[in-house]
Amino acid sequence: MSRRAVVLLSGGMDSAVALAESRASGFEAHAVSFDYGQRHRAELVAASRVAAALGAVKHVVVRLDLRAFGGSALTADIAVPKDRIGTPHAAAEIPVTYVPARNTIFLSVALGYAETIGAADLFIGVNAIDYSGYPDCRPEFIEAFERMANLGTKMGAEGTPVRIHTPLARLSKRGIVERGLALGVDFSLTLTCYDPIETTSGSARPCGHCDACILRAEGFRAAGVRDETAE
Amino acid sequence: MSRRAVVLLSGGMDSAVALAESRASGFEAHAVSFDYGQRHRAELVAASRVAAALGAVKHVVVRLDLRAFGGSALTADIAVPKDRIGTPHAAAEIPVTYVPARNTIFLSVALGYAETIGAADLFIGVNAIDYSGYPDCRPEFIEAFERMANLGTKMGAEGTPVRIHTPLARLSKRGIVERGLALGVDFSLTLTCYDPIETTSGSARPCGHCDACILRAEGFRAAGVRDETAE
Repeated sequence: MSRRAVVLLSGGMDSAVALAESRASGFEAHAVSFDYGQRHRAELVAASRVAAALGAVKHVVVRLDLRAFGGSALTADIAVPKDRIGTPHAAAEIPVTYVPARNTIFLSVALGYAETIGAADLFIGVNAIDYSGYPDCRPEFIEAFERMANLGTKMGAEGTPVRIHTPLARLSKRGIVERGLALGVDFSLTLTCYDPIETTSGSARPCGHCDACILRAEGFRAAGVRDETAE
Repeated sequence: MSRRAVVLLSGGMDSAVALAESRASGFEAHAVSFDYGQRHRAELVAASRVAAALGAVKHVVVRLDLRAFGGSALTADIAVPKDRIGTPHAAAEIPVTYVPARNTIFLSVALGYAETIGAADLFIGVNAIDYSGYPDCRPEFIEAFERMANLGTKMGAEGTPVRIHTPLARLSKRGIVERGLALGVDFSLTLTCYDPIETTSGSARPCGHCDACILRAEGFRAAGVRDETAE
């Protein structure tokens, strides 16, 4: 029997590659997505498509109403900044699209799920190179979370080490595109945009101007690959 | 203006004292409770009573459906053990009432709420002495969480240290009762039981035999105080 892993799956390109990496490492993948009051349901639809295409044995959507707090462009009524990447302050600031403690919350719930199903391995598609300024994507945060998880769970306390896998941590966006293609990820199923435009058919297309769209486009351009989603 | 703190409030005696401590330290208290599919709504009713009585400026109930995972007597269909405290294996095992990663999840959501309202102080009523065997009540877990929180949030990254206050950490149950009474906590408003008996009036009375009831009774007995809730 293959070991189980829990994979955080947003529907974007990074988490799709993280899921593919978990499968390539021989894990039985249990994908977790969050319905946290994000503006766009299209993210969850994309996550569901990606989970099925990449052979996750299960895809759980956890409802968690972060709208009660407000405080981020991804959940509340704050405009998503456009064409920010490349401007002088983009490298120096934490963007308004930062959701307070989001990766901490998502990893914690994934940890609870993992322990419940007997999985000690978690995968998250954080990226420290083109990470867009979020503190909770940094390697030192992930290491601190792993340490905390080993102290705060029954499995950790009883000698089964919890591991947080970040296979994308050291990759550029170009590297992520190339690695995903090598693992057979169909990027046209993914939706990376922070502010997608809903189409009349009920699906969505990327805005092309938010941080996530710009970084994604740079990755595909650098890899010399067409991004069908953006067309 | 007094500083803000977020206080985890379960409706039990420990978190009531933690809330009272936050107020005694001069914080404006924002209480957070979780509707996580626990068996008994009576807990949330008690939390609401306690928040009002102890002067919290706000009481937020966050819905988070942990039942999707199963895995604990507090959320799923597993019997709550009775008259376990004092038996030989009680001291050596993690009880089935352990909810996978529960304090990690609750603290993480509280951290997101804290950052949203500009609070860097969190209070949680964990207790390392009579702690009933949960790994996520230990001081080393809390320290690791605090460290992780400082790396994974905007406030931590930008130089406002996050602090996790555990005013009950070193108290016995007797000490908690005595401290609560000194701070004016009305324990008759609290509900500590893991398996309360719903009454016809819609409220609930404690079972008297689960770990939480036994530890609570020992605390009141040692303090020489009557527990009106148990009568």
